[in-house]
Amino acid sequence: MRTLVASGVDVCFANPGTSEMHAVAALDAVPEMRGVLGLFEGVVTGAADGYGRMAGRPAATLLHLGPGMANGLANLHNASKARTGIVNLVGDHATSHKHLDAPLESNIDAFASTVSTWVRTPRRADDVGPAVAEAVTAATGRPAEIATVILRADAAWTEGGRVAAARPGAPAFPVPDATIDAVAAALRGERSNRTGGVALLIGGDTLTAAGTEAAGRVAAATGAKLIVETFPARIARGAGRVDPERLGYFAEQATAQLDGIDTLVLAGAVEPVSFFAYPGRPSKLAPPDADIVALSRPGDDGVAALSALADLVAGDAPAPLARLELRPARPTGASSVATTAAAVAATLPENAIICDESVSASAVFADATAHAAPHDWLRLTGGAIGDGLPMAVGAAVACPDRRVVALQADGSAMYTIQALWTMAREGLDVTVVMLSNRAYAILNYEMRRVGATGAGDRSGPLLSLDNPAIDAVALATGFGVPAERAVDAAHLADLLERSYATPGPTLIDVPLA
Amino acid sequence: MRTLVASGVDVCFANPGTSEMHAVAALDAVPEMRGVLGLFEGVVTGAADGYGRMAGRPAATLLHLGPGMANGLANLHNASKARTGIVNLVGDHATSHKHLDAPLESNIDAFASTVSTWVRTPRRADDVGPAVAEAVTAATGRPAEIATVILRADAAWTEGGRVAAARPGAPAFPVPDATIDAVAAALRGERSNRTGGVALLIGGDTLTAAGTEAAGRVAAATGAKLIVETFPARIARGAGRVDPERLGYFAEQATAQLDGIDTLVLAGAVEPVSFFAYPGRPSKLAPPDADIVALSRPGDDGVAALSALADLVAGDAPAPLARLELRPARPTGASSVATTAAAVAATLPENAIICDESVSASAVFADATAHAAPHDWLRLTGGAIGDGLPMAVGAAVACPDRRVVALQADGSAMYTIQALWTMAREGLDVTVVMLSNRAYAILNYEMRRVGATGAGDRSGPLLSLDNPAIDAVALATGFGVPAERAVDAAHLADLLERSYATPGPTLIDVPLA
Repeated sequence: MRTLVASGVDVCFANPGTSEMHAVAALDAVPEMRGVLGLFEGVVTGAADGYGRMAGRPAATLLHLGPGMANGLANLHNASKARTGIVNLVGDHATSHKHLDAPLESNIDAFASTVSTWVRTPRRADDVGPAVAEAVTAATGRPAEIATVILRADAAWTEGGRVAAARPGAPAFPVPDATIDAVAAALRGERSNRTGGVALLIGGDTLTAAGTEAAGRVAAATGAKLIVETFPARIARGAGRVDPERLGYFAEQATAQLDGIDTLVLAGAVEPVSFFAYPGRPSKLAPPDADIVALSRPGDDGVAALSALADLVAGDAPAPLARLELRPARPTGASSVATTAAAVAATLPENAIICDESVSASAVFADATAHAAPHDWLRLTGGAIGDGLPMAVGAAVACPDRRVVALQADGSAMYTIQALWTMAREGLDVTVVMLSNRAYAILNYEMRRVGATGAGDRSGPLLSLDNPAIDAVALATGFGVPAERAVDAAHLADLLERSYATPGPTLIDVPLA
Repeated sequence: MRTLVASGVDVCFANPGTSEMHAVAALDAVPEMRGVLGLFEGVVTGAADGYGRMAGRPAATLLHLGPGMANGLANLHNASKARTGIVNLVGDHATSHKHLDAPLESNIDAFASTVSTWVRTPRRADDVGPAVAEAVTAATGRPAEIATVILRADAAWTEGGRVAAARPGAPAFPVPDATIDAVAAALRGERSNRTGGVALLIGGDTLTAAGTEAAGRVAAATGAKLIVETFPARIARGAGRVDPERLGYFAEQATAQLDGIDTLVLAGAVEPVSFFAYPGRPSKLAPPDADIVALSRPGDDGVAALSALADLVAGDAPAPLARLELRPARPTGASSVATTAAAVAATLPENAIICDESVSASAVFADATAHAAPHDWLRLTGGAIGDGLPMAVGAAVACPDRRVVALQADGSAMYTIQALWTMAREGLDVTVVMLSNRAYAILNYEMRRVGATGAGDRSGPLLSLDNPAIDAVALATGFGVPAERAVDAAHLADLLERSYATPGPTLIDVPLA
């Protein structure tokens, strides 16, 4: 615990058991470390993901042996796709107990290695501090890693631990001037066999206000089409920021957006591929004959590279910026995805953090909020639904002075609904907008798109969340979060504003037709 | 789907996504297969565990790629420790899409292999049927395995699938006569250097009414101490059945129970070890110099072996059986673990199935119900809390004519509380008794036992579920399950009886001091 604090890690999201009791007891001796309890490990790891994205440094997690880690793997998968650094402490049996096949015996290394690129098992008490310091190094490098220290009970309870000194992770790699020059040439259309235009696809670390502004200058000056990756871990948006178009989720949308380009420049983003494969459709989204040129890759200093590129090709020409006066008006009428998005956009407080797990409704929300008050937007990066509410927990712990708005699809919410309790316990300033369409709506689209026939009398119920309808207000009440149901769009706007003015969490249920 | 049905697997617990849409659509064409939706994968796999324990044949699960399987691993761990056969179908990307690192790309084989001893990835449509038939073989062998078929999207959507013929799993291995004779000699005290008594530890497949009766005859005739393993997957108990003492959870209890024996006979059980290691205590629970003799091991036909042994050593002498008139009286007074256990024992309907995830209260419930109406008792086998409510779902699907009573600790319930919704949707006859002590009570014991100092001002809250208190009645209402709160023990007994008389699920919240 002292090594973590010395290394700059001072929040530990935890769901401990017997084998972690010494780590829990250590919280009494190390008051600099904040322990935050989750009722389920997916809450713990998702909170660490949200925390890391907003704090820019890792949180620790404390998990109970292999099965505890297993419950956290899905959100560690999302975190790994977001390149969020996390330090997992996973308790294990004492070494003398490992070979006895006790009920909780499992291969923790195997669980951890599915999502964690750095795994160590210090065997002695005096190895634990150095291992933890190294784990922080891995979790603070560029790109950041998910690091796991397997903490055996005997290493935890034996005397002789020592605090290891901090060793910061590797900094971002500076992009060579030659690469920047080559990209500038590509943007100026210097390809010999021109057949179309240029697109600049930005992602990863470049999605700060400074990065998107530099990208906007490049695009405005060169005529390149500016596109942002489909699932940003975090992007600065809203009034005063550049508003790039978003690469569509559906393959045919994305293919249309990239149609007619002969050069695709990547900054922080990777080559775009469809989320799923579909029969008879290509998985790669760029035209097959387009040149793909990387300005910066994950781990590089993409903002510096984009800024240098902008200075080279755009000079003093400004980027077009979103304007608050263009945000949607406060809506009236029945609740729908469109009026809900307008209500969020019209009322969003300055500097909010939006955790977006709205799934099939996400594009509507993104469009509506492009000109809202400036905010950060966090998306589900790895497709493992159930990261939205936990991310909101972590973002709120990282940024206690900012309002977090969780745009939450009801089906996805049910994977980690226990996150509401941690919001209540910690008094986190989170407004959950529950989009209750009572269906896995995305699957109703996808069923047709993959060429499957459905949804029939027997398959249909597997895509529906009706019968019985889930009552999100009751669930929130059960977990100690004040909740109300919006009767229409104007009421929703009122409830949103009231939640922003009220410290602590609120859930607003929005029944959708 | 047709291969599963032909192989005797006709229930599929499912939480599907896009890559499983063809499997979902197949339900329309194969009405013999019952699809049961869970809101979270831990519900799905835990239900398959409960189903398999009660049906004696495997259920299938349908899971969404690596993260979907990850969410189900903890309860697959429990199922593997219970030796419950399960056939997992896990969707994956099309083969052409695998190398593109799409957001949901992961190493499913690595996830599966943590808990699954049999994993295959059929690459072509016509390989799927045979792979599924082989998976059922693994899941129906003795001991049963957890088998996983990774179903790539292109294998699912390509024409050419074929139905493979059923191939039943290997039967239980008959125990050789020589082994039975040797155990008979040990029980008769024929060890040369006698220093103490004999204990017969039964577990696994031997815990049927016939198996425990044979064990009871052996013990009565030979004076051996009859003990049942701490965490049985399923044991027949109550009036008319043998009531062996239970090996204690805490190491010092178990050591005391085995103190003074020089011979430990194992039938279906494995050598007993403590759940966790503790500083300065041995992990093995039997006296170090005791002979350990196995009558039958997991995979053997333990009931036949015990019956043959009983015939050899006990002749016609009967086993002592529990008697209904000895059950506790209907309690009055304030709610406590003791009065709650008495209320359950006094009211339990004939042939009920008890799913026990009462954790720190389990021993009290087991004592109180020893003479209750005959019932089956299912325990958490692998220590990964969050199996109780899902097991109840699966047991109720397997046995629609029996009442399922879930004895559920509140902390453990929160891992898979979404199981309530499936109970409501399927109209399952489950009575959930929620033991609301608002704490991880077991950890308050364990904190001291592992020698950690706590719980202080900062560590204490990580073991508490207060602040805010969880309202289980509201949660049940949110998931569509009728719920009430017991105000005292007599009220609880009334609510229990009313729930048994009412089709479908009920949750009864029991606040404990």
